[in-house]
Amino acid sequence: MSHNNHLLTVSDYETRSRELFPPQLFEANFSTDGGRFEANTRNIQAFNSARLRPRVLVGVGTCKVSTTVLGQNIGVPVMIAPAGVHQRAHPDGELATARAAASAGTVMVLSQHSTYTIEEVAEVATGSLWFQLYFLKDRAITERLVLRAEEAGYKALMVTVDHVGNLQSEHQIVDASWRVLSNFAGTDLEGLSASEVYHNRFEWDLNWSDLEWLRARTSLPLVVKGIQTAEDAELCREHGVNAIVVSNHGGHALPDAKGTLETLPEVVDSVRGELEVYMDGGVRRGSDVLKALALGARAVFIGRPLFWGLRVDGERGVLDVLNILRSELESTMRLCGVTNVEHVSRSLVSMPASWDPERSLVGVNGRVP
Amino acid sequence: MSHNNHLLTVSDYETRSRELFPPQLFEANFSTDGGRFEANTRNIQAFNSARLRPRVLVGVGTCKVSTTVLGQNIGVPVMIAPAGVHQRAHPDGELATARAAASAGTVMVLSQHSTYTIEEVAEVATGSLWFQLYFLKDRAITERLVLRAEEAGYKALMVTVDHVGNLQSEHQIVDASWRVLSNFAGTDLEGLSASEVYHNRFEWDLNWSDLEWLRARTSLPLVVKGIQTAEDAELCREHGVNAIVVSNHGGHALPDAKGTLETLPEVVDSVRGELEVYMDGGVRRGSDVLKALALGARAVFIGRPLFWGLRVDGERGVLDVLNILRSELESTMRLCGVTNVEHVSRSLVSMPASWDPERSLVGVNGRVP
Amino acid sequence: MSHNNHLLTVSDYETRSRELFPPQLFEANFSTDGGRFEANTRNIQAFNSARLRPRVLVGVGTCKVSTTVLGQNIGVPVMIAPAGVHQRAHPDGELATARAAASAGTVMVLSQHSTYTIEEVAEVATGSLWFQLYFLKDRAITERLVLRAEEAGYKALMVTVDHVGNLQSEHQIVDASWRVLSNFAGTDLEGLSASEVYHNRFEWDLNWSDLEWLRARTSLPLVVKGIQTAEDAELCREHGVNAIVVSNHGGHALPDAKGTLETLPEVVDSVRGELEVYMDGGVRRGSDVLKALALGARAVFIGRPLFWGLRVDGERGVLDVLNILRSELESTMRLCGVTNVEHVSRSLVSMPASWDPERSLVGVNGRVP
Amino acid sequence: MSHNNHLLTVSDYETRSRELFPPQLFEANFSTDGGRFEANTRNIQAFNSARLRPRVLVGVGTCKVSTTVLGQNIGVPVMIAPAGVHQRAHPDGELATARAAASAGTVMVLSQHSTYTIEEVAEVATGSLWFQLYFLKDRAITERLVLRAEEAGYKALMVTVDHVGNLQSEHQIVDASWRVLSNFAGTDLEGLSASEVYHNRFEWDLNWSDLEWLRARTSLPLVVKGIQTAEDAELCREHGVNAIVVSNHGGHALPDAKGTLETLPEVVDSVRGELEVYMDGGVRRGSDVLKALALGARAVFIGRPLFWGLRVDGERGVLDVLNILRSELESTMRLCGVTNVEHVSRSLVSMPASWDPERSLVGVNGRVP
Repeated sequence: MSHNNHLLTVSDYETRSRELFPPQLFEANFSTDGGRFEANTRNIQAFNSARLRPRVLVGVGTCKVSTTVLGQNIGVPVMIAPAGVHQRAHPDGELATARAAASAGTVMVLSQHSTYTIEEVAEVATGSLWFQLYFLKDRAITERLVLRAEEAGYKALMVTVDHVGNLQSEHQIVDASWRVLSNFAGTDLEGLSASEVYHNRFEWDLNWSDLEWLRARTSLPLVVKGIQTAEDAELCREHGVNAIVVSNHGGHALPDAKGTLETLPEVVDSVRGELEVYMDGGVRRGSDVLKALALGARAVFIGRPLFWGLRVDGERGVLDVLNILRSELESTMRLCGVTNVEHVSRSLVSMPASWDPERSLVGVNGRVP
Repeated sequence: MSHNNHLLTVSDYETRSRELFPPQLFEANFSTDGGRFEANTRNIQAFNSARLRPRVLVGVGTCKVSTTVLGQNIGVPVMIAPAGVHQRAHPDGELATARAAASAGTVMVLSQHSTYTIEEVAEVATGSLWFQLYFLKDRAITERLVLRAEEAGYKALMVTVDHVGNLQSEHQIVDASWRVLSNFAGTDLEGLSASEVYHNRFEWDLNWSDLEWLRARTSLPLVVKGIQTAEDAELCREHGVNAIVVSNHGGHALPDAKGTLETLPEVVDSVRGELEVYMDGGVRRGSDVLKALALGARAVFIGRPLFWGLRVDGERGVLDVLNILRSELESTMRLCGVTNVEHVSRSLVSMPASWDPERSLVGVNGRVP
Repeated sequence: MSHNNHLLTVSDYETRSRELFPPQLFEANFSTDGGRFEANTRNIQAFNSARLRPRVLVGVGTCKVSTTVLGQNIGVPVMIAPAGVHQRAHPDGELATARAAASAGTVMVLSQHSTYTIEEVAEVATGSLWFQLYFLKDRAITERLVLRAEEAGYKALMVTVDHVGNLQSEHQIVDASWRVLSNFAGTDLEGLSASEVYHNRFEWDLNWSDLEWLRARTSLPLVVKGIQTAEDAELCREHGVNAIVVSNHGGHALPDAKGTLETLPEVVDSVRGELEVYMDGGVRRGSDVLKALALGARAVFIGRPLFWGLRVDGERGVLDVLNILRSELESTMRLCGVTNVEHVSRSLVSMPASWDPERSLVGVNGRVP
Repeated sequence: MSHNNHLLTVSDYETRSRELFPPQLFEANFSTDGGRFEANTRNIQAFNSARLRPRVLVGVGTCKVSTTVLGQNIGVPVMIAPAGVHQRAHPDGELATARAAASAGTVMVLSQHSTYTIEEVAEVATGSLWFQLYFLKDRAITERLVLRAEEAGYKALMVTVDHVGNLQSEHQIVDASWRVLSNFAGTDLEGLSASEVYHNRFEWDLNWSDLEWLRARTSLPLVVKGIQTAEDAELCREHGVNAIVVSNHGGHALPDAKGTLETLPEVVDSVRGELEVYMDGGVRRGSDVLKALALGARAVFIGRPLFWGLRVDGERGVLDVLNILRSELESTMRLCGVTNVEHVSRSLVSMPASWDPERSLVGVNGRVP
C-alpha cells in the first residue's frame, strides 16, 4: 500500500523527514514531542493508554472506511489539519497537499497562512476544501477572506479559537525567505512576517459575540477548533456551531492541557449528538483513528504527518501517509470486528477510569456523581 | 527437577535458545517482547501486576496439579499451544513436542501448519492430541482436515478466530527451506509458502454461521481460540462451543489488546461456568499458572517456551520446560496454601481495580455499575 | 519581559545560578530536588500531575493579576517566602530582595534570620513587608522582635510551626563568615551561629496556647506557616488565625509529606473561606501559580527562585524572576480563558482522584464518604 | 546518636557492610532487593508510597517511644527478628545481638537456627528474649526446644508458618564452616547442614491442629509469623494465638506477595484488637516504623539491618542501628505531632486507595463493599 517499501509506517516518515529537514526547523515545528510540546506528548500517551476490545466472527469481508463530515463524503475519516506555510516542507506546498487529499478522497483544511492563495489552491484541488481562519484585529480583512473562500468554492469555515496567548519562552521559527501569507496580498498585512501578524494583528480578545458575528457573515458550515471542555462544547452547540475540533493545537497552545483523546468523551457526551465532533493531536496509527472514532469522534485530523510526507516525497508522500493510515485503519477494524466506521461504539475501547465523564466532571458546574 | 542444572527457569531457556537460534528468526518469532509484540509485553506485565494472597496452615503435604480439560485427564494444567512449523526449532519438530507432552501427561494442540502431518504426529504420540485449524477459503480442505484429525484420534478441535487482518508493517519470517505445511499435500495448497497460504487462502470473512458449519461437521468438542471480550464469550456459549481460549495470539494479532490475564475475569464471569475457559500469553512461571487458575482459567497454554525448549534440547527440552512449570506451580501452591488446582478461588489474587468486571464493563452493552 | 534574553524561565535562573554558587552550598540549600528534598520533589510532581481545562471565547483582552492578601493590594499573587541569610546569594541580601519585591508590587516576608535587620530592610522597602518568626525559648526576645516589626511598619506576622525536630542525617550548611542573625544584636543570642540558635534556642515544644500568647501580643494579622492537614487548618480557624500557608518547608521538614498542591484542596475545604490560604513549594512556572489559585490558594510564595535571581543579578535578578512568573501567569490565564486571578474556580483543574478531599479524608476524624 | 559519624543512617550501614561481607554471601542473603527478593522490593516500595499527614502545635517536648508487647515493656517499638546463624556476620553472633537488644531495651527473637544455643544466649542477655521455631518432622525435638526455651526464661514462642515450599531456583548459601544449628546437639540433626535440615527435616505439611498441639505444649504466649491475609489473621484469633507478625519473610518466601505495609490494614481490621499485630519487611527508617504503627502494628522487626550492624561493628553496630531508628522515630514523631507511640492513629497516614480493606477485600469470602 505504501509507495515506498522502506517507509511502512507514519513513524518511518517522521524518521526519514527528520534527516531531510533543517534540524532547527524540525525540532521547533515538526518533532512529535520533546520538551516544547508537553501536551502533544500527552496526546500520544493517551492513545497508548487506551486498549481495544476486539470482537470476532462478525464478517469483516468488507470494511467501510468512508463516511461523511458535514454531509460531505470522505473516503477515509482522516482529514488534513490547517497548518501554515507548507512550503517549509516542499516547493509545491499546499498545491501538493491539496492534490494528495483529493486523491485520498478526503478534506483538506487550508490555513489562512498558506503559501499559495485561497484561489490557487482551489484551482488545483479536485476534492473538498475547507478554509481556516483566525480573527484579525482588522475585521474587514477577515470578512474579505471569508468571502473569497466562499467564492472559491470552499465547503466550510473553521475558526481556531485556542491560541489566545503565547508563553515568553516559545518562539515560532519561520524562515522569512519562504513565500508566506499570500492571502494578505493587497492588504496592509502584505509583506509582514508570520510572527508579526501573529503577535500584532491577531485579535486575541475574543468572545462568543465575535463568533456570532462570523456566523452571520457566512452561510457555510462553521467549525470551531480548539475546544477542550464539556462546558465550551455545550456553548458551541448553543451558538449554532456545526462541528467542533477537540484540539490542543498539537501541543503548541497550553502546555498543561490533557491529551485530546482523554478529553474527547466529556466533549462528546456534552453535545448529545447535535453537532459533529472531530479531534486532532498525536494521530500516528490506524488504531489511533479507530480509538478516536470509538470515543465519539466522527473523523480525525493530521498535522505534523502531512509535513513529514510532504518533505519526503511531495504530493506522493502526503498521499502515502494517508494511505498508510487508511490501510492500518482497515486492518485494525478487521482485527477488531468492525465493518463500518460509522458504527463504532464506545465499548470497543477500554479506557482509564479517569477519562470517564461521569468521574472527570465531578464538581464541575454543580454536577454530582 | 530440571534436566539441566544450568537452566533452572523458563527464562533461562529463553536466554539459552536466543544464543542458538538465528538472530533474525528469534527476534521475529520467538522473543518475548520488543516493539513488535506490544500486546505480549502487556501479557507479561499483567502477570507481574497481580499479587497472590498466601494462606497458611492448611495442610499442603500433597498438592494435586492434575485436572481435566473437556473431561480428559491432564497431569498438569499447562498445555502445548498450537504453533506452526516446529522444525524451525528442531529437526524432530512436532514429533519431539508430542512425545514431551505425552511424558508430562498433558495435551498438545497440533497446528494446521505443522511440519509433520496429522497422522505422523498421531503415530508417535502416546498422550492426548487436539487439532487446531484456521478456516480456509476452500472449505472442502478444511472439512477434510477435520475428518483426518477425527480419524487419527485427535480429541478436540480448536479453531483460531482472532487473526483476521494483518498490519502492513508486520511480516512473517518463515524460511521456505523447512518442511512446512505438510497437511496440505495432495491439495492445491501443496508447495505454497506459509505466507501465501496465510494471505491468499485463509478465509478472513468469518461469522457465527461459519462456526455453526464447523460445529455440524464434527462430533469432537469445539474450542474457540482468540476470545477477548465478555460479549464474544457469551456468544460462544450460545453457539454450543465447549471451551474458549482467552488469547491475543501472543501479541501477533491486535497490538492494542489488553494483557490476557486482565481480560480473563470478564470472560470467566460471562460464561457462568457453562463452558471451560483457558488462556495463553506470557506464561513463564508457575506462579503465572496459579494466577490464571485463580482468575478462572481451567488451564493455560505455552507457545514460545516450547520453541525455547525444543531448540535447546529437543524432546527433553520441551519436557524440561513443562517440568519446571509444574515444579514451580507446586511450590507456589504450597507457598499459597493451595492443595488442588481444581479448587483455586479468585480471593487468592489481589488484582488491579481496573480488572474488576463490574468496573471494566461499565457502559458496555447497557450494563450499569 | 525578562531583563536577560538568555534567561527566559525560572529554570534558566536555576541553571545559571548553579554555575555561580559554591557547589556544596547550592546542593545543600538551593537545588530543587535530589535525595535530600523528597517532599520538594513531590511538590513539583504535584504541579506536573494537575492538568488545566482551558476555556475559550471569554474575552481575555485584559487579565487582572493583582489581588489582595489580608486586605493589602499586591500586583501579582506571588510573594517572597521567608528565608534566612540572603547574603548567601548576594552582598545586598535582603535589601536587594525587598527592593525587587516592592518594584513587583508584592509582599516580602522577612525571615527572623535575616542578614540585614528588621529596621534596615524597612528603611529601603517601599512595598509591603511581613515579618516571620520562630518561637524562641527566651520568649522575651520573641516578644521584642514582634514589637520591633510592628514599630518598623511590618504589616503582618508569620509564625513557622512545622520545623519541630530534625533528622540526624540532615545538616544545615551556613558559612559563619556571612553576616547573619543581625536581629539578635544586643541579646544573648548575638554571635551565635544559625545552627546553634536552631538547635539550642528554638522552642520546639509548642502548642496552641503558645499561639494564643502570640495572638495576644500583637494587633498585626497572624499568618501560620506549615499547615498540611484539614484538621490543623480548622484549629487555626478556631484560634483566630488570619491566614495559613500550606507548606512542607520546601522539603526541609518532614520528608514523607505530600506535595503541597495535593494537600491544598483538603485544607481549603476545611477553612470554609473564613481565612486566607496561601501555599509554597515547587512554584516554578506561571501555570503552577494558576493551578494553586484554582485549587483555592489566594497567593503563592517562592523560596529557592528568589535565591537564584539574587545570585545571578541581585535586585534585578529577583525582579526578573517575579516578572517571568507574572508574564507566564498572564499568558496561561489567556490560554485558559481566565481574566481575573480573584475568580479562578476549581473546575479549571483536572486533578488526580486521590486529591479529592471527599476521598482523601475517608476515615479521618470519623468522616465518611 | 550514632556511634560513628560516618554511618548516619541504616542505609549507610548497608553500604558499609556490603564492602565487608563476601560478595556472594551478601547478595544471596543480606542485600535489600535485587531480582531474588521481589517481595522485599515491594516491602520497601510500600513504605515509600505511604505519606504522612503531619500535625502541628501539639506539644512535642517529650516523645514516648516505649511501649509493651505481650505485656512486656520495650524501650522502642523495634524488635530483633529471628534470623539464623548470626556468625555469618560476626564471631560473637547472637551473643552480640542479644547484648545490643538488651542495651536498647528491646526484645530479641532467637532463631531455632542460632549459632549459639538457647542457653548460651540466655546467659548473656539482660533483656527479654523470645524463641522462634519451625515445626520439625521429629516433633519430639520441637517439643524439647520449647521446653528448653521455657526453662531458659524465654518470654514467648514465635512459630514461623510461611516457608512451606521453596522454588527450585532459590538456593540458601550458608557456609558450612560456621558453627551452626547448635540447638540440635544431641539429636540426630546434629552435624547436618542448615540446607539439609530445611529440605529434609522440616515439617511442611502443617495445619491448624499442629498449632493447637503447640498451644497445648506451652504456657508461653504464642506468636505466629508469616500471616498475610485477613482470613488467616481471623483464624489465628480463633485459635488462641496471642500475636501475629505480618511478614513475607523479607522476600524469601512467596515472590508474588504484596508489600507487608500494604497488607497490614486488612489484617489489623480483621483481628479487631483482640491480639497484637507486628510486622517486618523493609524497615529502614524511623518514618517506616511510624507508618507501620499508624496502620495498626504494635511494633516492627528488623532482619537484614541487624546483620549490617553486626558485620560493621559487632554488638556496638547492632545497638547503633537500633539507636538510629529510635532517634529517627523520635524526630519523625516530633515532625508529625505525635507524642506517644501507643497513640498513633490511621489518620496520620495517607495511603494508596488500593490498600483500603473495604476495597481490597471486595469479593473475598462473600464480603461486599
